[in-house]
Amino acid sequence: MRIARLGPSGQEIPVVIDGDRVLDLRDVTTDVTPEFLEHQLSALDPSTLPELRDTAGLRHGPPITRPTAVVCVGMNYARHAAESGAEPPTEPVVFFKHPNTVVGPDDPVTIPRGSTMTDWEVELGVVIGRQTSYLDSPADAAARIAGYVLANDVSERELQLHRSGGQWSKGKSAPTFTPVGPWLVTADELDPAAVRLRSRVNGEPRQDSSTADLIFSVPDIMYRLSQFMTLEPGDLILTGTPEGVALSGRFPYLSAGDVVELDGDELGRQRQTMVEAKDGR
Amino acid sequence: MRIARLGPSGQEIPVVIDGDRVLDLRDVTTDVTPEFLEHQLSALDPSTLPELRDTAGLRHGPPITRPTAVVCVGMNYARHAAESGAEPPTEPVVFFKHPNTVVGPDDPVTIPRGSTMTDWEVELGVVIGRQTSYLDSPADAAARIAGYVLANDVSERELQLHRSGGQWSKGKSAPTFTPVGPWLVTADELDPAAVRLRSRVNGEPRQDSSTADLIFSVPDIMYRLSQFMTLEPGDLILTGTPEGVALSGRFPYLSAGDVVELDGDELGRQRQTMVEAKDGR
Repeated sequence: MRIARLGPSGQEIPVVIDGDRVLDLRDVTTDVTPEFLEHQLSALDPSTLPELRDTAGLRHGPPITRPTAVVCVGMNYARHAAESGAEPPTEPVVFFKHPNTVVGPDDPVTIPRGSTMTDWEVELGVVIGRQTSYLDSPADAAARIAGYVLANDVSERELQLHRSGGQWSKGKSAPTFTPVGPWLVTADELDPAAVRLRSRVNGEPRQDSSTADLIFSVPDIMYRLSQFMTLEPGDLILTGTPEGVALSGRFPYLSAGDVVELDGDELGRQRQTMVEAKDGR
Repeated sequence: MRIARLGPSGQEIPVVIDGDRVLDLRDVTTDVTPEFLEHQLSALDPSTLPELRDTAGLRHGPPITRPTAVVCVGMNYARHAAESGAEPPTEPVVFFKHPNTVVGPDDPVTIPRGSTMTDWEVELGVVIGRQTSYLDSPADAAARIAGYVLANDVSERELQLHRSGGQWSKGKSAPTFTPVGPWLVTADELDPAAVRLRSRVNGEPRQDSSTADLIFSVPDIMYRLSQFMTLEPGDLILTGTPEGVALSGRFPYLSAGDVVELDGDELGRQRQTMVEAKDGR
């Protein structure tokens, strides 16, 4: 099942996308909240939902409301670690993004004032469905996952690496830096170890890898994170990006007017135009 | 004015503490939410509030509801940087804690399973009152601050430093790791550059410094953060801890049964008993 949120920012309508049909979730829930993900999603019967008409042209918002936390796993592909000048990690590298960075999949992305090192990162995102703490094994993770999303972990490398004292969050939290969507695919319908992830800039290929190459798999990430933090329903875990970013030195960084496109197969596609920061934002 | 939340976890009553009297805020707001901090706090007239009786023995919850983000500035005191083996930073070092770590000032703190390096960090916390982005100068920060709180930035040093790949958040986000309170002092009543911060373990002194020694002052932190992230009403900024933590090698790490006490002068006092993680939490 594909869950989405359609409409202007702040006024999104929660829906199920069922082939060509768009089904209205508002009889079931006001929004794709943590409560919906935890208590209602698994029992949802789309055949009971009315169709939502005239959805052509409606903006896709992020398919979930603002998460309690955006938890990121860094350096989770061996060749991306290499292109970043690092060894593959022996334990997950964990950092956070400010949750207010989450925007829709096709919303413009703002290049921070003065930035010359804004970069793209296509990623598989995991949306938590049940509170999770001290899992006994990776096998216990699946039942805690509501679904999966495509995400762009936009990153400003000067802030992340050269002005940070080593703490990456500084270059990860600018406004609009986490496009998510277009939809959430429920956990029963996707193998998180077999998602092809691609990115393009101005039509030219950049990243093209598969989550089969993750150093720490989704169940392993969940198991390990749960040993030192409690994951909440609605939390978003970004699982790391594969090789092919500008940080590698093989491609230029992003400028205003550039178009970034992401493709996550069944997770859908994103398309963002880079814009300048202005008017105080 | 002192704002607090009294009662069992999840059922706290928002109040104003006015000397010996406790005033009930529930006619004004359901809770100390971001909306209250942004729109109602500055116009609040305590003389219109009814007194709340029989508050003796009520637990103090954290004085704010769960923040959108807990933003931390690390190494913000020169002598703490030195005891941690680091140079004083030339720009703020920024990381996040999971917002679900926030608990009341006297709630028990759970030592993560297997931890032998759980540490205390007394800090001045800043609670944001208005959305803040691209401030023109540090002088513009004051109007964005709702108030100040005392906080313990509890830290697990093995996770933070030895199993993290260098990203500190891993050792900062265990359940109960951010005691906050007992109350919020509104911004008009406190000079954030003159707060004495002390900690004790089992009655013995550990930290004793002043926010006068901050490398980056509160207005400077706000100005600098706003250049690369948007701060939201209700966000909590932890401004760094002074010297005197166990990481220095001068004191033992915490064990179950240890009692940590913090004192932040007008910001009040905290007292936490360390407990073992069990029953899956």
